[in-house]
Amino acid sequence: MSTGETELVQYFTAKSRLNSAKFPIGIGDDMAQVRLPQGNSVLITTDMLLDGVHFDTKKATLEQIGYKSMAASLSDCAAMATIPLAAVVSVALPKNFGAARLKRLHKGILIAAKRYNCPLIGGDMTSWSKPLAVSVAMLSKPAGTKPVKRSTAKIGDIICVTGILGGSIIKKNLEFVPRLKESLAIAKAGANAMIDISDGLSTDLNHISRLSKKGAIVEAGKIPISTDAKKTSNPLKSALNDGEDFELLFTIPQKSFERLKKRWHFKVKLTAIGKIAGGSSVKIKMPDGKICDLLPAGFDHLRKTK
Amino acid sequence: MSTGETELVQYFTAKSRLNSAKFPIGIGDDMAQVRLPQGNSVLITTDMLLDGVHFDTKKATLEQIGYKSMAASLSDCAAMATIPLAAVVSVALPKNFGAARLKRLHKGILIAAKRYNCPLIGGDMTSWSKPLAVSVAMLSKPAGTKPVKRSTAKIGDIICVTGILGGSIIKKNLEFVPRLKESLAIAKAGANAMIDISDGLSTDLNHISRLSKKGAIVEAGKIPISTDAKKTSNPLKSALNDGEDFELLFTIPQKSFERLKKRWHFKVKLTAIGKIAGGSSVKIKMPDGKICDLLPAGFDHLRKTK
Repeated sequence: MSTGETELVQYFTAKSRLNSAKFPIGIGDDMAQVRLPQGNSVLITTDMLLDGVHFDTKKATLEQIGYKSMAASLSDCAAMATIPLAAVVSVALPKNFGAARLKRLHKGILIAAKRYNCPLIGGDMTSWSKPLAVSVAMLSKPAGTKPVKRSTAKIGDIICVTGILGGSIIKKNLEFVPRLKESLAIAKAGANAMIDISDGLSTDLNHISRLSKKGAIVEAGKIPISTDAKKTSNPLKSALNDGEDFELLFTIPQKSFERLKKRWHFKVKLTAIGKIAGGSSVKIKMPDGKICDLLPAGFDHLRKTK
Repeated sequence: MSTGETELVQYFTAKSRLNSAKFPIGIGDDMAQVRLPQGNSVLITTDMLLDGVHFDTKKATLEQIGYKSMAASLSDCAAMATIPLAAVVSVALPKNFGAARLKRLHKGILIAAKRYNCPLIGGDMTSWSKPLAVSVAMLSKPAGTKPVKRSTAKIGDIICVTGILGGSIIKKNLEFVPRLKESLAIAKAGANAMIDISDGLSTDLNHISRLSKKGAIVEAGKIPISTDAKKTSNPLKSALNDGEDFELLFTIPQKSFERLKKRWHFKVKLTAIGKIAGGSSVKIKMPDGKICDLLPAGFDHLRKTK
């Protein structure tokens, strides 16, 4: 594949030519927004999780796989600072999967559905002679603030992340908590742009930079590195590039950030790691003071396959 | 798999315990309905189409596969007598699928999106070393009438179908026209229950019967058999049991049916094939006058896999 995901998304966006009055947010963000009469709107996202790519049926339990499938879309709801409404799930089941295993997958889906108040309201199932695939589509609604897009970072904004980054493959990728409550507080405080870190910090910050047409600089020394990333040979690289952290990455004016920090009452960490700047490149200040380009080096879903 | 699709759907329905004020239509119909403030609501459906089951990448073009993936969900919108709003599509792409082929799949999706005014507003893509899977989730809105459910057939209703049935595998399964306009006229005329024939007439009529807790009797001689079904060794069997007709099957009071018939200005055929009755079994009057049980003998997505 010579064309990466980003270029293709740009192609699809151009081809769809969406009416922005009906669809204020279209292709290329964490969710798309559909305007309805009387000032209502809903947002929608979809994620397909595949055996051997997003989970491994030999290692993860079916309950974990069900939970993760829902949690990935719930994290998209958080990335937009919206409130989950409902989900539908379509599954491709390996031959002889059996009702008992399907019920365990379903149990994991329901754990997430109940915990985050996002009921499973429909679905579709087919069996085939290939591995398990789980596709979730989720609806959400705005939370009293405008949904926070990827494309609206402003020069001077502080770049922040929730939680600690890297090494998610060890355990967190199956058990992560979508940052739904935190995201509403962040939006209320006045965040300008937000994304959830699913492809890795370096890739997802580049998404914000590219879509906002702004530059960015982060300080390596400020990046909150997880205990699991610290066990790797290159903890900083792990925190920068590992996928599936499912933490929030957002940009917010300095004053709003100070207020947010003062009022922050969540257990999860809140860390300022850099600033939105002019230009168009994402840079990183290394511990030795050297400034380098921070290229997207995380997960490109069309470039890497296990 | 000892448990069929129907039993599992009943299990999932029981487990979800949906709030019917928020979700007037839940698991087990063609779409689920989500109530929003100010009398608004949206409906949602999802369908996953798989290589070797719903299409064959060796025989169908990628444009046809894209079109069919959308049209299957559009047919669900028709089955509820609702107006399509937007779609999101997630795809699992075989390794080395390449941008060119993805663009052809996308082209087929856009053909359906434009033709039926249902824009593609988002999606997700991942590559893996397995065959192509395409999952569509689609939103629709009520069309001024209540969405028509599967579970509300009344005794004495005429059972009707649009179009001609059977033999879809030969060609129609890739090119069918979702009966969107027809369905709105049918709902406006006062249909009590409706489903699209995706699993075969015998199976889908049994869905209406079971969910409505009513019996049904159809006359074999009245079933409109397609030219392609007539080429098979048993045309009636083909019309009764073949999947993927994507025609509408509905029940409507006698008087409303007469009115609907008088006003029917669509090219597609409208045929009364039987009546909703008491009891709980679906029966068929054979050409020789013999009355037999019409068991669901169409496609059970968990029992048959190519």
